Amino acid sequence: MRIIETKAEMLAYAAADHDIGFVPTMGYLHEGHLSLVRRAKAENKKVVVSIFVNPAQFNDPADFEKYPVDIAHDAGLLKAEGVDALFLPSRQEVYPHGVPLLTLRYEALMGRLCGAFRPGHFEGVLLIVHNLFMWVKPARAYFGLKDYQQYLLIQKMARDLELPVDVVGCPLVRESDGLALSSRNVRLSATGRKEALKISQALLKAKRDFSRYTQNLPFLKKQLTTDLAPLQVEYASFYDAHTLEEIEDFSKVKPQVLIAVAAFVEGVRLIDNVLVT
Amino acid sequence: MRIIETKAEMLAYAAADHDIGFVPTMGYLHEGHLSLVRRAKAENKKVVVSIFVNPAQFNDPADFEKYPVDIAHDAGLLKAEGVDALFLPSRQEVYPHGVPLLTLRYEALMGRLCGAFRPGHFEGVLLIVHNLFMWVKPARAYFGLKDYQQYLLIQKMARDLELPVDVVGCPLVRESDGLALSSRNVRLSATGRKEALKISQALLKAKRDFSRYTQNLPFLKKQLTTDLAPLQVEYASFYDAHTLEEIEDFSKVKPQVLIAVAAFVEGVRLIDNVLVT
Repeated sequence: MRIIETKAEMLAYAAADHDIGFVPTMGYLHEGHLSLVRRAKAENKKVVVSIFVNPAQFNDPADFEKYPVDIAHDAGLLKAEGVDALFLPSRQEVYPHGVPLLTLRYEALMGRLCGAFRPGHFEGVLLIVHNLFMWVKPARAYFGLKDYQQYLLIQKMARDLELPVDVVGCPLVRESDGLALSSRNVRLSATGRKEALKISQALLKAKRDFSRYTQNLPFLKKQLTTDLAPLQVEYASFYDAHTLEEIEDFSKVKPQVLIAVAAFVEGVRLIDNVLVT
Repeated sequence: MRIIETKAEMLAYAAADHDIGFVPTMGYLHEGHLSLVRRAKAENKKVVVSIFVNPAQFNDPADFEKYPVDIAHDAGLLKAEGVDALFLPSRQEVYPHGVPLLTLRYEALMGRLCGAFRPGHFEGVLLIVHNLFMWVKPARAYFGLKDYQQYLLIQKMARDLELPVDVVGCPLVRESDGLALSSRNVRLSATGRKEALKISQALLKAKRDFSRYTQNLPFLKKQLTTDLAPLQVEYASFYDAHTLEEIEDFSKVKPQVLIAVAAFVEGVRLIDNVLVT
């Protein structure tokens, strides 16, 4: 596996190969990331993974400082998966003039769900993903549906900015007990981890009940809220999967519904969601 | 000269040639545009000119409706200059899903000069220029310094979004009597045209006086305002050419100063500027 640390080397590598599958990450890899890598392996001639903890997308500096890093372990996992190149640019390489003042913004979409609670977060995500695409020049790029809003925004950006890449959304991966995989889970104590299970349990219950009580939205919402009550919840509700508007009336709804939650456990912000049709 | 009307054809053309000089325009070409074309001819193997009256950058729908169009005449001029390809995409081709909801924004820079009076204008400019770059893939792109703020923003965007293109600013072109060339000049009556001369006269006088009265900024500003008094002025002052901040004190200033004016004559919005060192 080749380690690439500069934009110039990345551009040269990309120029030599026109069928790259790309998995951009912030490192501290888990099975969720590896599922993206495997999908990329299956669908492309070459697979490039990037690790860059992007300061521009952390609205909370403490979260940035605490973000776990273990490049050596990550590199071992990626090598074992047969990844062709690991792109590891420094902050100076990515932002030689400091974080740009340019903002890429979808006003309505970014005002909902996580966007409403993390000012500047998705603007930072779109900027880094745009620029990674410019360097890696992938044919396909893979994102987990755990960050559903992120996936939706990146897909729209790629279309609206005419980026020649297929943005592929891949299923969320859970632990055997249901907890959604996240690099931040490592910051939970054993008790916190148990507490965190309430999120996936409430979501999976909401999904089950959705088909039985489709006409009874107030009941479904109330139940979700009750199930999450012990946690410090940021948002938890039923959303139109295309517009991310909270659904007030199922009869007017588009085919896909997103049930999504953000909550804090032991000061760690966790998100999870399920898609229902 | 090849006429290209679709993105697919433009991409194929761009893929075959890696040294394209590009001049994006909104048509109704004059000597200012042709000076960009000649510079592009001198510096590149192939020259591509685009004509697209971009609805997304008109904050005033009436201005969009009245924007002059004469493709046949433009094509004749460009052919005579030896342009290799004229890219003429339709609105449907450029915005198949309607004008995108994505905004590209420099908060501070867009709040000054024209940006302060034309909400959404530069966001629309950055979007179309970004996407034209994605289709034409130029090595160099040429913009007139008459639209100085536009040039500055595009240059910054190209750097911040890692677009592999040199953004080249080219000198403003004037009529023999000093009037800055503009496609909108055609909408002026003979009287209006005479009235419009006050703009370039005031600017050229300000430039002359700048070296003599550098320490006397209030005098210079007052004189510029007085000279433009008969017109309906939107802005007229001395700005830091890098930040576009209005200069309050020359002693603290960066090497380049922009003296810039926007004013209405017979309902036509005219802009002009001079750069001084």
